[in-house]
Amino acid sequence: MWWGAGMADAPARFKDLCLDALDHQAQADWWCAALGYVRRDELEGDDGDPRPLDWPVPIVDPAGAGPLMWVVPVPESKLLKNRMHFDVVGDTQALLAAGATVVRHRDAVPTPDGIEWDVLADPEGNEFCVFSPE
Amino acid sequence: MWWGAGMADAPARFKDLCLDALDHQAQADWWCAALGYVRRDELEGDDGDPRPLDWPVPIVDPAGAGPLMWVVPVPESKLLKNRMHFDVVGDTQALLAAGATVVRHRDAVPTPDGIEWDVLADPEGNEFCVFSPE
Repeated sequence: MWWGAGMADAPARFKDLCLDALDHQAQADWWCAALGYVRRDELEGDDGDPRPLDWPVPIVDPAGAGPLMWVVPVPESKLLKNRMHFDVVGDTQALLAAGATVVRHRDAVPTPDGIEWDVLADPEGNEFCVFSPE
Repeated sequence: MWWGAGMADAPARFKDLCLDALDHQAQADWWCAALGYVRRDELEGDDGDPRPLDWPVPIVDPAGAGPLMWVVPVPESKLLKNRMHFDVVGDTQALLAAGATVVRHRDAVPTPDGIEWDVLADPEGNEFCVFSPE
């Protein structure tokens, strides 16, 4: 592969995602329900000491397709549009029923290539885009 | 698996990441070099019409381990600490040599579980955390 040598020399590789949250326990539960993720400790059947409640909560995709996400407690609220977000494939109506809110409906802004998506926000206002299954 | 039924019923699944950028072409190049990613069009050997320069740039991990990332042009600069970021495993000195800056060195704040990381920022100021290879 023409990129083979370059890859081995890259200074870093992707590890996981981190999402700041005012109520990180609630946000971890919400994103687990939304994405079909589970708390990593549950997945591993951890029978050791419980993780302190004020520590970041790692949630994972049991199917192994999506990245691990740390939901991290922070004291500050969200103030501006996030500069990083993720896209999901899914059902906008089911996400709204679960507590998401509409930021921009897919009909609001036509795109040059005809691809459409809804912009929703999670319970703490973090934007994410929802694409229909193909 | 005890979570099997729930997974199938989740309203969404993770698709990809999006990073806003003032200079999205430069940021796409920077993150390709940092993570060993490549522009998706190059990976696919796309010989069709070139993608318009002002469109979001999809960059991908040729090894298939990290998520696809869209580097998206926006008119606004970064103003606050990002509420979402990603962690990498890698070499802090090599990332600094490539143009990253130090936000917080790993020695600055001891962590309760002894895990250490550096917080760096990319050329547009987006924070990311660097963990040492295990």
